Amino acid sequence: METAYFNGKLLPKDEIKISPDDRGFLFADGIYEVVRWYEGFFYDMNSHLTRLKRSLRELRINWPGADSFPAVAHDLIKLNNLENQPAMVYLQVTRGAARRTHYFPSPEVQPTAYANAWGFKPDEQLKEKGVKVMLKEDIRWSRCDIKSVSLLPNTMSFQEACENRLKECIFVRNGLITEGSHSNIFFVIDGTLFTHPESNHILSGITRKNILRIAQESGIKIREEALQENRIRFIQEAFITNTSAEVTPVTELGGNTLHDGVPGPVTIIIRDKFDNEIKALKV
Amino acid sequence: METAYFNGKLLPKDEIKISPDDRGFLFADGIYEVVRWYEGFFYDMNSHLTRLKRSLRELRINWPGADSFPAVAHDLIKLNNLENQPAMVYLQVTRGAARRTHYFPSPEVQPTAYANAWGFKPDEQLKEKGVKVMLKEDIRWSRCDIKSVSLLPNTMSFQEACENRLKECIFVRNGLITEGSHSNIFFVIDGTLFTHPESNHILSGITRKNILRIAQESGIKIREEALQENRIRFIQEAFITNTSAEVTPVTELGGNTLHDGVPGPVTIIIRDKFDNEIKALKV
Repeated sequence: METAYFNGKLLPKDEIKISPDDRGFLFADGIYEVVRWYEGFFYDMNSHLTRLKRSLRELRINWPGADSFPAVAHDLIKLNNLENQPAMVYLQVTRGAARRTHYFPSPEVQPTAYANAWGFKPDEQLKEKGVKVMLKEDIRWSRCDIKSVSLLPNTMSFQEACENRLKECIFVRNGLITEGSHSNIFFVIDGTLFTHPESNHILSGITRKNILRIAQESGIKIREEALQENRIRFIQEAFITNTSAEVTPVTELGGNTLHDGVPGPVTIIIRDKFDNEIKALKV
Repeated sequence: METAYFNGKLLPKDEIKISPDDRGFLFADGIYEVVRWYEGFFYDMNSHLTRLKRSLRELRINWPGADSFPAVAHDLIKLNNLENQPAMVYLQVTRGAARRTHYFPSPEVQPTAYANAWGFKPDEQLKEKGVKVMLKEDIRWSRCDIKSVSLLPNTMSFQEACENRLKECIFVRNGLITEGSHSNIFFVIDGTLFTHPESNHILSGITRKNILRIAQESGIKIREEALQENRIRFIQEAFITNTSAEVTPVTELGGNTLHDGVPGPVTIIIRDKFDNEIKALKV
């Protein structure tokens, strides 16, 4: 039986039910985080916690439980017997349940906090061989920096990718490549690593941040700069990053084959350094 | 005790609980409708039903219950003893509950359908004296034509308006005035009625549509054309429309007083014609 977290308690997941008045359900008025468990530790929990607090602050949701999240995440791993396998913990916090009004409930109500955990088997082949991704106009709102559950455009766009047998949908806004539906994207041009700078048009990914650190430590030149879609022909390599898929090479971007369809050397260096960091942490 | 509708059944509202796996809760992957009950009938239920079906179609949610909505709405009015007072019925349909993935559940799962009803006392003073509204950059996505529950930007923007003691937040996108956080907006310039044309940047309001019909029947010249923000000084009158507030004059727009702070003559003609239509339907 699966155990999950709900408003301060660990419960059988089946017993957890959300009110139809919950503002998460009615208005997407909430935020989330996903952390990855590596058979012994969560990767960069501190950064996830910092981002969680920022998301709450941006939406002015006062959830006093934020600092308990690392402990809750550990409990969920343990109680669901996931300690010895790759797993994910998902946390969602909404503004709570109240009579439906577009304005925030006044006085404030208790936020709804829900978390669950699940084990998974990483797809090593994708990381090894790379993936094909599509390009599409960014239809999302202009506060993509907030990790909110207002994800309808992301699901619609990713679904379109899947139906085209592609592994991610990469967005283009005003001619500039921003990020994927649930990943950040990096490019290599003449040995320099490019990625969209932090802004209201991308989510500041935790893996993204660590990849920038790893690239810097490796002496790879970095430019946090948005790439114009019409410069695709100059791209030699690309890869996407996120918490669950880590570093995944991109071998085809919007119909353009990259690096003869195999992961390029800079991508491989970065992917392997990331993997080695994880291995070192496991010891 | 309040009665609500959930997946084909009428139940005490307290017994209705949403799964934390519901895609409405996790991804804002759902749509809604709100219809107004006028002590005897729902205003233009046919148009609401048509829009409901369009929203479902746009998101590819296959809810076989759509045609039952008018009957369900009637049942909710009756069972909650709202027949003899102004009331609203809210319906939300999501893609259903499934393991969290950005792509749509495959195979499809049963959509979640929830509806409830409540009575209210219309604020006649706002309709009589008019309201002040703010202007703000439109931070929403670019599929505002879908009546989805991805409403976080709407709630954030409306909250900002409320905190400034204003009654609506009107959006400006690329210099053009689009609509409000939960209303459409009309302007009068030299006797001509302006409103943003149907597009992916506005919701096609049912009241908006009926106001255009009423204006045409009244011989008022209409231009469905987006107004540039920098043309505000040419605006003589403005009003907002939606299902609950009907026609509400705007007396101040982004700090600019309109028509000396009182509703203008074209606004009054249209508001009164709308009210008279309702009165005639009540007989």
